[in-house]
Amino acid sequence: MNSLATNSALQPDTAQRAVPAAFIDALKARFADRCSTALVVREQHGRDESSFDAPPPAAVVFAQSTQDVADAVKLAAHYCVPIIPFGVGTSLEGHLLAVQGGISLDVSRMNQVLSINAEDLTVTVQAGVTRKQLNEAVKCTGLFFPIDPGADATLGGMCATRASGTNAVRYGTMRENVLALQVVTAQGEIIRTGTRAKKSSAGYDLTRLMVGSEGTLGVITEVTVKLYPLPEAISAAICSFPSIEAAVRTTIQIIQLGIPIARVELIDANTVRLVNAHAKLCLREEPLLLMEFHGSPASVKEQAETVQEIAAECGGNAFEWASTPEERTRLWTARHNAYFAAIQSKPGCRAISTDTCVPISRLADCLLDSVAEADASGIPYFLVGHVGDGNFHFGYLIDPSLPEERATAERLNHALVARALALNGTCSGEHGIGLHKMDFLVTETGAGAVGMMRSIKKALDPNNIMNPGKIFAQ
Amino acid sequence: MNSLATNSALQPDTAQRAVPAAFIDALKARFADRCSTALVVREQHGRDESSFDAPPPAAVVFAQSTQDVADAVKLAAHYCVPIIPFGVGTSLEGHLLAVQGGISLDVSRMNQVLSINAEDLTVTVQAGVTRKQLNEAVKCTGLFFPIDPGADATLGGMCATRASGTNAVRYGTMRENVLALQVVTAQGEIIRTGTRAKKSSAGYDLTRLMVGSEGTLGVITEVTVKLYPLPEAISAAICSFPSIEAAVRTTIQIIQLGIPIARVELIDANTVRLVNAHAKLCLREEPLLLMEFHGSPASVKEQAETVQEIAAECGGNAFEWASTPEERTRLWTARHNAYFAAIQSKPGCRAISTDTCVPISRLADCLLDSVAEADASGIPYFLVGHVGDGNFHFGYLIDPSLPEERATAERLNHALVARALALNGTCSGEHGIGLHKMDFLVTETGAGAVGMMRSIKKALDPNNIMNPGKIFAQ
Repeated sequence: MNSLATNSALQPDTAQRAVPAAFIDALKARFADRCSTALVVREQHGRDESSFDAPPPAAVVFAQSTQDVADAVKLAAHYCVPIIPFGVGTSLEGHLLAVQGGISLDVSRMNQVLSINAEDLTVTVQAGVTRKQLNEAVKCTGLFFPIDPGADATLGGMCATRASGTNAVRYGTMRENVLALQVVTAQGEIIRTGTRAKKSSAGYDLTRLMVGSEGTLGVITEVTVKLYPLPEAISAAICSFPSIEAAVRTTIQIIQLGIPIARVELIDANTVRLVNAHAKLCLREEPLLLMEFHGSPASVKEQAETVQEIAAECGGNAFEWASTPEERTRLWTARHNAYFAAIQSKPGCRAISTDTCVPISRLADCLLDSVAEADASGIPYFLVGHVGDGNFHFGYLIDPSLPEERATAERLNHALVARALALNGTCSGEHGIGLHKMDFLVTETGAGAVGMMRSIKKALDPNNIMNPGKIFAQ
Repeated sequence: MNSLATNSALQPDTAQRAVPAAFIDALKARFADRCSTALVVREQHGRDESSFDAPPPAAVVFAQSTQDVADAVKLAAHYCVPIIPFGVGTSLEGHLLAVQGGISLDVSRMNQVLSINAEDLTVTVQAGVTRKQLNEAVKCTGLFFPIDPGADATLGGMCATRASGTNAVRYGTMRENVLALQVVTAQGEIIRTGTRAKKSSAGYDLTRLMVGSEGTLGVITEVTVKLYPLPEAISAAICSFPSIEAAVRTTIQIIQLGIPIARVELIDANTVRLVNAHAKLCLREEPLLLMEFHGSPASVKEQAETVQEIAAECGGNAFEWASTPEERTRLWTARHNAYFAAIQSKPGCRAISTDTCVPISRLADCLLDSVAEADASGIPYFLVGHVGDGNFHFGYLIDPSLPEERATAERLNHALVARALALNGTCSGEHGIGLHKMDFLVTETGAGAVGMMRSIKKALDPNNIMNPGKIFAQ
């Protein structure tokens, strides 16, 4: 595994900060058995889906209420100890790692759906509610929450990383879909960042400052998001292509024509093979687009016909329909499990996941050059993409015991990010910066913009206790 | 007119700050005849569409480039003099007023469309480009920029106030449509806040921090926004209703059903009369909804039919179509001129404009009680609303020489805002806080959230030179 302290490409501040025994005593006095120092619990909260390692946190506090969070933060502030919010641990960029020590604040027990306002198409939940739980809770209203990052992440975590996923091409990301938050500040104060009004010009947009702040500015405790009417009609289709380029050209045309496609996912031929093996499917082992259309029956038909025409013009073959909900679920589950299918294909491997996003017209350039580079490297990889947004992920499968494989993967990722930035794209479409992309953030936005972020961080968290060492050097 | 210093309901800090002669000399040395101290120029930049008065700025600098802005800000920073960005002066909340003295920085000559990226549905412009100019520039690409606050505001100003308007119900507000900004910080540094990628999780969302910051955190110099394909088909319709309630009930159902209506505007009977007189139209003098549908021909037909059914069920009568572009333009121009039609109906009057926005299910409650109160007050008013978003505006027409009329209007506005906040709405849907709503902002978000805004302001502008005295007391 990657030792953060010794990898010269990454230089997060990993100096361990003191965790006074009196602090742990105070936590135990306040939280009793909801403050654990058991190694197994700490280790479970000291890792995530990233490929990094760090010492586990000194303790884990399980919050059940906003007041719990406020009290834990106040104690952390008093003793000047880092505090790291934890949902269900699906971060891909090392957000949860206690790189400077401190404690993990687990909010997964804050899992109440607080109010469903079906008439207003909004819902307010505690931060530990997961997206699947949320959709289960609102199902009876005929509404749904579309943001779907694959993992069954918590809403708090999805806010913190500005998550998106397969439906974002139509419904937007967490940036567009969060109306308001309740947040515990670094001082332990409880604030609200908005109302349930659909729009507002009332002061600075604290909601969107918190969305994507990766736990570094405060702890998100409640989330109000938009809901959408379940589409009257849904249809899904798979189309295979002779090349990735043909699939990408199809996607670009769909977007440029303004077709309100709900999902358009690219899976490369190799990943189709992995997915077939893992999910026992028989998809054609060629690059394919997995698509979904939402709307009235007439509108879905119209969208699908237009897309089918475009695909045919680009050389697409075998446009197949998944018309029943079961078939659709099976397909999307297979797509979401591509990561696990890939991981299992190389026992003991870890995936170095990329997350670039480029303007749609540059997608083919960015993707094809990167595929050629990855192929030449000899490192096995999977490739999936929310290509309607210009966002795609390579997962380079490395043997963590072989430093040269990691080095190759890092080289590929560096080249990919450099290419994306040159095409006016971003180093992170949806996973966040965390530990892995701090250098890229500076390259992408410039020292001035990062300096502004740092000023905000210092102003709101002067003692640097909120998830320190992430996003940028503090 | 309202003297800010003597109105006890508003307490912005209006202590005039020193403007050293050496500062003006330095500006003249740098900008020559693009720095004006002529009274007529200063007065023109010292007022806006709000009903406030303040002394004019000490000078006006006409910037032609980002470097001009950076140099002006650096000089202002050096002499610690307030600097107030100015687009075309259409603010409704006193944003442009030099309440603490200082200079106005006019960016209206920064009016270059820098790059149209039609393939990516994005465009980058200088901050002084107006929305009509932008749409003219992109017309040949088959794309358009939908945000339409009525006034032909600059893109910089629209960012600064987080503007929206009639199309927001479908296309969102500036919050959702700005991809990236170039900003000159309070230190005179030039930064970029994003890329042209459609989504990003790369660090704090500085773009959305700047959108809605009302010139208090920096000067916006370039704006990259999303464009949309011109709809294949557009149709507009007017429907009259026996009551405002019936019109609002129709709107609520349209939204709850998820119909992607592009515009749905309420105009009350009295305002229809004013608009008829001003624009020489013959609209039925009843509450009406002015609607627009965008999409494929089939989709537009389907939307319009569904809406017509809903309207009929709610008692709507006389569903009329405006099928030619000329008719549509005439109708929307009349709608946008409601403000001027109203102002002209009472010579010498000024309008106190309200801007509440509530969750859609509470719209009828909020609106009807407020109409009853306004009717009972005897103050003439106009009433228009972007009701699909739950946002509406009263304009109370007062005689500025009669303090009791202003007091009545302020009382009505206070009652309206209190009602909106009790219904979990906001005091400002799209006009911003400026000078008028600072108290309301504290009531709405709480002292803790305003404290966080103040911390950010202090961190980014420690000498408080960027449009001081606006949004909150600094």
